[in-house]
Amino acid sequence: MTFSKIDWAAKEPKAPEVHTAIPGPESKNIQSQLDGVFDARAVQFVVDYEKSIGNYIVDADGNTLLDVYSQIASIPVGYNNPNLIAAAQSPDMVTALVNRPAIGNFPSSKWAQQLKNGLLRAAPKGLNQVFTAQSGSEANELAYKAAFMYYRRKQRGDADWSEEEMSSVMRNQYPGSPDLAILSFKDSFHGRGFASLSTTRSKPVHKMDIPSFKWPQASFPHLKYPLEQHKAENDAEEQRCLKEVETIIEHWHSPVAAVIIEPIQSEGGDNHASPAFFQGLQAITKKYGILLIADEVQTGFGATGKFWGYEHWELPSPPDMVTFSKKAQTAGYFFSDSLIRPDKAYRQFNTWIGDPARVLFCNAIIDEIERSNLLEQCSRVGDALYSELAKLADKYPTKIQNLRGKGKGTYIAFDTPSPADLTKKAKTLGINIGMCGTNTVRLRPMLIFEERHIPTLITALDKALA
Amino acid sequence: MTFSKIDWAAKEPKAPEVHTAIPGPESKNIQSQLDGVFDARAVQFVVDYEKSIGNYIVDADGNTLLDVYSQIASIPVGYNNPNLIAAAQSPDMVTALVNRPAIGNFPSSKWAQQLKNGLLRAAPKGLNQVFTAQSGSEANELAYKAAFMYYRRKQRGDADWSEEEMSSVMRNQYPGSPDLAILSFKDSFHGRGFASLSTTRSKPVHKMDIPSFKWPQASFPHLKYPLEQHKAENDAEEQRCLKEVETIIEHWHSPVAAVIIEPIQSEGGDNHASPAFFQGLQAITKKYGILLIADEVQTGFGATGKFWGYEHWELPSPPDMVTFSKKAQTAGYFFSDSLIRPDKAYRQFNTWIGDPARVLFCNAIIDEIERSNLLEQCSRVGDALYSELAKLADKYPTKIQNLRGKGKGTYIAFDTPSPADLTKKAKTLGINIGMCGTNTVRLRPMLIFEERHIPTLITALDKALA
Repeated sequence: MTFSKIDWAAKEPKAPEVHTAIPGPESKNIQSQLDGVFDARAVQFVVDYEKSIGNYIVDADGNTLLDVYSQIASIPVGYNNPNLIAAAQSPDMVTALVNRPAIGNFPSSKWAQQLKNGLLRAAPKGLNQVFTAQSGSEANELAYKAAFMYYRRKQRGDADWSEEEMSSVMRNQYPGSPDLAILSFKDSFHGRGFASLSTTRSKPVHKMDIPSFKWPQASFPHLKYPLEQHKAENDAEEQRCLKEVETIIEHWHSPVAAVIIEPIQSEGGDNHASPAFFQGLQAITKKYGILLIADEVQTGFGATGKFWGYEHWELPSPPDMVTFSKKAQTAGYFFSDSLIRPDKAYRQFNTWIGDPARVLFCNAIIDEIERSNLLEQCSRVGDALYSELAKLADKYPTKIQNLRGKGKGTYIAFDTPSPADLTKKAKTLGINIGMCGTNTVRLRPMLIFEERHIPTLITALDKALA
Repeated sequence: MTFSKIDWAAKEPKAPEVHTAIPGPESKNIQSQLDGVFDARAVQFVVDYEKSIGNYIVDADGNTLLDVYSQIASIPVGYNNPNLIAAAQSPDMVTALVNRPAIGNFPSSKWAQQLKNGLLRAAPKGLNQVFTAQSGSEANELAYKAAFMYYRRKQRGDADWSEEEMSSVMRNQYPGSPDLAILSFKDSFHGRGFASLSTTRSKPVHKMDIPSFKWPQASFPHLKYPLEQHKAENDAEEQRCLKEVETIIEHWHSPVAAVIIEPIQSEGGDNHASPAFFQGLQAITKKYGILLIADEVQTGFGATGKFWGYEHWELPSPPDMVTFSKKAQTAGYFFSDSLIRPDKAYRQFNTWIGDPARVLFCNAIIDEIERSNLLEQCSRVGDALYSELAKLADKYPTKIQNLRGKGKGTYIAFDTPSPADLTKKAKTLGINIGMCGTNTVRLRPMLIFEERHIPTLITALDKALA
């Protein structure tokens, strides 16, 4: 089958078109019907997914918006992408949907090849094994479980489980259930399961009233922008944070089994750090023999112009585990160290272990990224977009501050005094755009965002800021 | 569209056919290839899902087995069910796969109707709201989060969050992050996330080395069989367990926010209790103002001959939350109390909140159950199967003990001295059958298991036991 790149310009509308308030009357009507059976209080607008195409989302009132939020950064290659439609209609997909396996016990005869020819093509260099899951939260928690088993295995050596461990663990007590910790960073977001939420430190609304593990947090660098003008201060800030990490590892009341970090803290406000910081962090984890987990749930699958966000760190060796979800449309974690695979079967296990239907879909996304050179495109378009935003920042110096994400594809953000007002206004001007942190607007376009979309976005932002 | 019940007898093979060891050479070959990239140590055999049909599973070596294990009790209505294939190929399914929404922010205009005409038709009587998820573990943990928020809301009243709560919660400390507990039962299985695993009490292999919440467990009744001959003892045992529940609620070091229980403890050994026990348990939860969660992950969707396992309890009112997964092929929890919906938006939230593609698939399963009267069939076939197993138990009194599940559809189990040997032997005789607990064989056929399959199963078990 010959492949030709999709001509989105021919398929997409020429421009956004908004003719009601957003949400419009039909969105509100459906939202209110939905709210009777399903919590719909966070609904921004209701979507007609059949009519949405490429970078454009169409709402229930027929409004058409340029979507640079992409379902909280999770739509990779466009609404109704014809190549993904073909994957969804393939015989393998139908089989995977209809005959969902307990994949640990009864894998399909095609599963090994589906992983090798698909998901593992996306594996971070050097990480040749994968454990599949269903969400970013689950992926991180499975990585934590792997880290705890790894830590105890190093302590236990080849000794088998003791009687005391076997009985105490059934009572949730030491030594079978040890007091071990995962270290995360202030303002991080790693998910909403109980353990992932214990490492999430972004907002009270995520965590309030939920029991937590008493795990530590280190400061994440607060860099000043533009980076070039504050190099010495920023370096000192990063060194301060690394020192804090080391102090915590040495003095926390329970041993730290792993450190988890996002390449760019996303929900927490699009906070960046330099390659030197991440190199230093990896050196610390190696020094103390603990694992480094890169949470690539939001940064992975091309969003920063490289397939994985951590590739910007220029590490001498990959992180020990890399977790993914969102744009992958499935989830899980990659690893290579054979000790991270538990010493016995059935320790890292569940009924489904992910969803092969969603893995097949992910494979089609990887095809699409590779065949259409979307990493190169995202990187190139991101640079152009950043330049235009820098001009806008010059024009509105109090309304666009700390513009960041240069050289990281379209993964761009800026601070603004009233982000809720700005994103609301942007919707009425035909741009669906998101927030993060407390005063930040983040751009999370799809990988198929092109140069021709930039003027549409910039013009609308200019109007909204004026 | 007129509907006619699928004639599985015309589609299925007449009998199992095994011509290699199981796993056979091709299964082993593929398993070993898979193991290079994905932990394949728990693989029982590798499956040709294209060739599997109805109640019959076909392995990579061309062996055909009658499947009464059904992907750890998760295949509801047959491999390659034509009605599910049609659902998988429908335009709505393609849209749902290709345009996966962040459903809390941007639901599809069809979502409300897909829930109302689909999943909510399966809702336990009186529970009219649903929160969707992706696995049984996640469903239970979301129910725990709802219970903790509910508990604190009752304490807090209408007061807003205090400054102290807002700052302490970001450090994982009291009062924002309170020390609250979920009570579960010995030998229970509620999943493998960190909080669900803290309530799981089945086997050390599930829990070893994983930090846990210090939550309490009560004894689950150990009933003697046949039930009719041990009524007084069994009643006393159940009263003892209820008393223990009450003692724990009154004296545990942290308040108990909810009790979670399976209608039949499944992974833990197919342990049953009487309606009086469950009625007593509900009365205790109501007395103390805490929530009762029915974990229907394995028992739900018809497996006991009723849609929900708890319907056998004859409760005056439904449990506060009912969780589901497995045969539903999606997951989540039902509830009705408006206080179980958190007081603010974004507290119970995540990017995807389930997968609408899997919900559509679930809707087709509900259609299939209703149109083909599969509850009635499961109940009727289960009674006939139980009678035949009772005869076999009379023939092998030391090898089939504590036969249980009478009147609970095909949800039948028995104890046997060497369950691993028996299930292994059964495979070579063409029956794929599972274990649970420490010495139990459990039957988990699909809802489309028919009377004509009973002799096939019984003859093989008879041979295996001889």
